[in-house]
Amino acid sequence: MNLILLLESDFISSHRVRLSGRRFLHIQDILKAQCGQSLTVGKINGLLGKGTLVHKENDAVELEVNFNQKPPGALPLTLILALQRPPMLKRILFSAAMLGIKKIIILNFNRVEKSLWNSSALKPQSITEQLVLGLEQAKDTLMPEVILKKGFKSFVDDELPALIKGNRALVAHPGGGDHAITNFNAVIPCASTVIPAKAGILNQPITLIIGPEGGIIDYEIELLESVGCQTIDLGPRIFRTESVLPYIVGKLF
Amino acid sequence: MNLILLLESDFISSHRVRLSGRRFLHIQDILKAQCGQSLTVGKINGLLGKGTLVHKENDAVELEVNFNQKPPGALPLTLILALQRPPMLKRILFSAAMLGIKKIIILNFNRVEKSLWNSSALKPQSITEQLVLGLEQAKDTLMPEVILKKGFKSFVDDELPALIKGNRALVAHPGGGDHAITNFNAVIPCASTVIPAKAGILNQPITLIIGPEGGIIDYEIELLESVGCQTIDLGPRIFRTESVLPYIVGKLF
Repeated sequence: MNLILLLESDFISSHRVRLSGRRFLHIQDILKAQCGQSLTVGKINGLLGKGTLVHKENDAVELEVNFNQKPPGALPLTLILALQRPPMLKRILFSAAMLGIKKIIILNFNRVEKSLWNSSALKPQSITEQLVLGLEQAKDTLMPEVILKKGFKSFVDDELPALIKGNRALVAHPGGGDHAITNFNAVIPCASTVIPAKAGILNQPITLIIGPEGGIIDYEIELLESVGCQTIDLGPRIFRTESVLPYIVGKLF
Repeated sequence: MNLILLLESDFISSHRVRLSGRRFLHIQDILKAQCGQSLTVGKINGLLGKGTLVHKENDAVELEVNFNQKPPGALPLTLILALQRPPMLKRILFSAAMLGIKKIIILNFNRVEKSLWNSSALKPQSITEQLVLGLEQAKDTLMPEVILKKGFKSFVDDELPALIKGNRALVAHPGGGDHAITNFNAVIPCASTVIPAKAGILNQPITLIIGPEGGIIDYEIELLESVGCQTIDLGPRIFRTESVLPYIVGKLF
C-alpha cells in the first residue's frame, strides 16, 4: 500500500476522513504512524494529496486531508481477458490496475471452464478489492471499469468492431501454431525515439486480447481476425498469463 | 507444465524414462494421455524432444524418448535480486526461469529482514522446485544458476565490477527520489529495428538489480553507482516486484 485510497464514505467532513479496518491496521502496524505524521493519500477517482494523522483510537484513525496532485496517466490500453481461475484472475486484475489499465472486459472463450462463471472471484466486491489493491500499489486513484461478457461470438460480432475502431487490436497467442506465425518484434517494430513513451511505440491506443489457460481455438482466432484483430506470438517461450500483461505493456509503452 | 522435464535419474535405459509423482499425475490427470500418445519432453540441460507413452501403471508411466531440438535461447540478462519474502521469492524465481534468465544472484540489502535468510524458500530443493516449474512453463531445459550473497558491501566492492564488465548494469529504483532522476525510456532509447530482438535493444548483456520491498537506501545506491551501475526509474507507478521483471524484460528484449 503505497497510497491510502479514500472512498466518499470515509469523509466525516470536507477535509477529514475516519479510517478503520485494513487501512487503519496498515497505518498502525506497517507505517507505525504517529499523530502529526503526513501520509500519501488519494481520493477515489480524484486527486492525490497528503493526510495528516490527527486522531488515533484503538480501532480507527482520523486524517486531515488535502489534495493537490493528479494521479499518473492512464495507459491507453483496453484489456480483453479470458476468464481465468480465481487466483490467476485476482493477480491479473491487481496487475491491470497497477499498470494503469482502465477498461477490462472479461470474456468467455471455448476453453474457459464454464463453472468459473460462478466463481466468487467474479463478485463485484471481490473484483473491486483487487483493483483497489492495484491502485494502492501504483499510487493511482482512477478505478478501472470491469465488464463481464459471457457470449464470445455475440461480443466479437456485435461489440468488438466498434470497440477497436482507431485502436490496434492484438491477440496474444503464445505458441499458437498455424495462426501465430508472426513474431511480436516484427509486428511491433521499435519506433523512433521521437515518439514520446507515454503514447506507446505504436502511437495509437491498444486493445489487447489474452486468451484462456488452454489457448484460443482456431475458430475463435479466425473470428477475431475477421473483425481486424492481429495475432501476435511472443516467441518460443510460453509465459504464464499473469506475466504476459506486464511483459507486453513493457514492450508497447 | 508445457514440457515434461526429465532428470538423469529418470532414465532406466538410454531412451526410456520412468516417471512417478508430480509428472505422473500431470500425464494421467491433466493430459489424460493414453499409450502410444506423444508428449513434449526435454532433458535437463539438454535437448527437447518427444516421449511416447509406452507403459502405464497405477503410480508410474514409462516413455520412449527422443531428443532433436534445441531449447529456446537464454536471455542475456543476469538478475541480482534482493532477498524477498518467500511467496514473492518463489514467484520471481519461477518467472526468471520462465523468461530465460540463467544467472540469479540473491543479495542482502539494508531493508531485507534478516530473518528471511533462514527461510525454507532458500533451501536448494525449494529454489530448484520453482526453477523447474518455470522451465516447464517456458518449454526450456537449461537450469539457471542461483547464488546467495549475504554481504552487500563485499559483493558490490569485490565481485560486482567483474560481473558487470561488458554489461549494462541497471538498478530498478521505482519512485526513488533524488537518485532515480532518469526516466527509463530516456535511459533506454528505443533502438532501430535493424538490431535483432534477441540481442536486446541495448545490444549488450544486461545486469539488472532489483531491490527489496522497502526500497534501496541512498548508501547502497551510491555504492552501486560508484562501480558503474545506472539507476533507472520506471515512472510514477510503483510496480510489485514480481511484475517489474517481465515488464523490464519486455522493454529490453
